[in-house]
Amino acid sequence: MKKFEEKTLKSETIFEGKIVKLQVDDVRLPNGKTSKRELIKHPGAVAIIPITKDNKIIFVEQYRKPLEKSIIEIPAGKLEPGEDPERTAIRELEEETGYTTSKLTKVASFYTSPGFADELMHIYITSDLEKLEQPPAQDEDEFVELIELSLDEAKRFVEAERIHDAKTNFAVLYLETQELL
Amino acid sequence: MKKFEEKTLKSETIFEGKIVKLQVDDVRLPNGKTSKRELIKHPGAVAIIPITKDNKIIFVEQYRKPLEKSIIEIPAGKLEPGEDPERTAIRELEEETGYTTSKLTKVASFYTSPGFADELMHIYITSDLEKLEQPPAQDEDEFVELIELSLDEAKRFVEAERIHDAKTNFAVLYLETQELL
Repeated sequence: MKKFEEKTLKSETIFEGKIVKLQVDDVRLPNGKTSKRELIKHPGAVAIIPITKDNKIIFVEQYRKPLEKSIIEIPAGKLEPGEDPERTAIRELEEETGYTTSKLTKVASFYTSPGFADELMHIYITSDLEKLEQPPAQDEDEFVELIELSLDEAKRFVEAERIHDAKTNFAVLYLETQELL
Repeated sequence: MKKFEEKTLKSETIFEGKIVKLQVDDVRLPNGKTSKRELIKHPGAVAIIPITKDNKIIFVEQYRKPLEKSIIEIPAGKLEPGEDPERTAIRELEEETGYTTSKLTKVASFYTSPGFADELMHIYITSDLEKLEQPPAQDEDEFVELIELSLDEAKRFVEAERIHDAKTNFAVLYLETQELL
């Protein structure tokens, strides 16, 4: 859909980093006026809801520099250029939890912050986990700790705002609607 | 929580715009090595789930330049510096829908993209809407169209990925768990 389309008059790349690219566009608005848009380009990401055989959800705790604190999230990671999201999901599951799966089910895809960023997040679920004998190394700048919670425990973590990021809050609500656990 | 804290060694501001600030930090990792973090600073945002007297949800369709398309979302907007999120929520509700309310209930707060941005999103719900006789003007660079949907219709829009952003997917799931509609 292109309703209220904003035509690009000029596009300037301000920064091109390892993860994000920042671009400022001059646009023509639907009423003919002009404005500026600050745009973050992001390769996209995946997140996985891993369910163990005893009906626990595997979360990871990690430090998030933008927030200057550690939070508890479902395992996630960004896409490599051209990588199939399902492949990324399995890679991140293996690296972050030491489990693998041959059966991922897609739950949803959504933009995380459509007002300023194009990051598209793909969410998968698996309850078919297999422990890897030799788990792959984590990214060398990534440090995570695993936390297994029942759905009731996870709901209490949401209430206490120890779980409070979009994909993880979504995942906990999703599990509530599914009555799997 | 500061588990796996990454200490800032140097912080460089690359860009300071109207909405986002981009900063690149050199950090000391828990293993003593150093790395770089690309960080987007954002003032935070609110979103509102407005329920009409006949049990419809009010959505807005608007063009999102980062995606180069228009999508259907719950009403939302960013915080002004120092503004109370509840005040922002009422302002955005009035500007985008022409309704106001004196009764907002907080649903959740979550970070939208904790890997690279500090945007914190506050979600509210109201089923106590009052039509304004003289609605305030919309932001001069904002063009939105209202769409009222039943919860069943909204779920179909999610399946078709015409609704596919984090806060709105969350809102539809939330309404499913609440059995209000």
